[in-house]
Amino acid sequence: MRGLFITLEGPEGAGKTTNRAYLAERLIAQGFSVALTREPGGTALAEKIRGILLDQHDEPMAVDTELLLMFAARAQHLAQVILPALEAGKIVICDRFTDATYAYQGGGRGLDCSRIALLEQFVQGDLRPDMTLLFDLPVVDGMARAEARGKLDRFEQEQHAFFEAVRQSYLQRAKDDPDRFRLVNAQQSLAEVQQNLEPYVLEIIERANEQ
Amino acid sequence: MRGLFITLEGPEGAGKTTNRAYLAERLIAQGFSVALTREPGGTALAEKIRGILLDQHDEPMAVDTELLLMFAARAQHLAQVILPALEAGKIVICDRFTDATYAYQGGGRGLDCSRIALLEQFVQGDLRPDMTLLFDLPVVDGMARAEARGKLDRFEQEQHAFFEAVRQSYLQRAKDDPDRFRLVNAQQSLAEVQQNLEPYVLEIIERANEQ
Repeated sequence: MRGLFITLEGPEGAGKTTNRAYLAERLIAQGFSVALTREPGGTALAEKIRGILLDQHDEPMAVDTELLLMFAARAQHLAQVILPALEAGKIVICDRFTDATYAYQGGGRGLDCSRIALLEQFVQGDLRPDMTLLFDLPVVDGMARAEARGKLDRFEQEQHAFFEAVRQSYLQRAKDDPDRFRLVNAQQSLAEVQQNLEPYVLEIIERANEQ
Repeated sequence: MRGLFITLEGPEGAGKTTNRAYLAERLIAQGFSVALTREPGGTALAEKIRGILLDQHDEPMAVDTELLLMFAARAQHLAQVILPALEAGKIVICDRFTDATYAYQGGGRGLDCSRIALLEQFVQGDLRPDMTLLFDLPVVDGMARAEARGKLDRFEQEQHAFFEAVRQSYLQRAKDDPDRFRLVNAQQSLAEVQQNLEPYVLEIIERANEQ
């Protein structure tokens, strides 16, 4: 596989979207071909699945249903967007990927991680991100920023303890896989965050040049 | 688990809906509590997933996406409808279940059956139908009846060879598991089909009385 697969993880309000655009600009300025995408979603069909995931429903969504919908959208996103872009040698920057499933469905909802791992292998085979930037933020800050944006979706309406579990799950995954994860302190100002990102930008450029 | 789980399988136009109602009437007349349902769908949320499965899209749906959506809908249907009804001692009669996934996605689309079996185990654990009535019909007859009903969905627009593979897959599964499957010749008149069903109706009544 050519190309590089970079994922951005962290809660709503941590600046992933802004910094995704910043990263893309830096890489494009170096002459790289960059594909920006997000999960859940990333294709018209996967966005329809995202709609079902984020909407409020009159019945509770079974945890297995949520997990299977996540991976259904992911399978479509991989087949239509991520894999073709990587095959074409692009740097793919994706806002959330399977680490988010471990953090939200595993850490947040308490779903058995071995069930997530089973679907991860089913859908991705051996594909994993080359680098994951984790934008870490205390829960109160993330919730305040998300609320300031307006109407909350099904996930954003969860309680503080849920988001605390999500954050701890993310941090644990970063600790368990230091080769892949790079931690970003998202509590800082945007200028400071981008300074924090600088060595990672250089590392991405170096690795992309090696491809 | 109390209750009985009966599934009806076969192509569009084989009379599953009509005979599902007939079966229900016979069982209700004997004083049984019956729950009628269908797949994909069976709950408001699962029907939304069914909508994504059956609609035409501007992009091709990846086979893994189709399979994961099928099982996402099934997980919801099981949690919300089938398992509570069986726990309450009802006879659940379901129009299509996992055998349809093996026949359409496995036989029809050529998807590796071991991948279907993996998701079947993931979502259902050890739950399997107690009895499956397979309404068998030559492909040309089924297609003619489906077309006579009007606009065809994404599955119904497949070609003859696809439906032939679906039929053969169903017949093979019935052959491989004669304890569970009962074959119904759906080419006959409705009166003849119901005569064909009679011993199976009596068998269901007997087994329900044993519960």
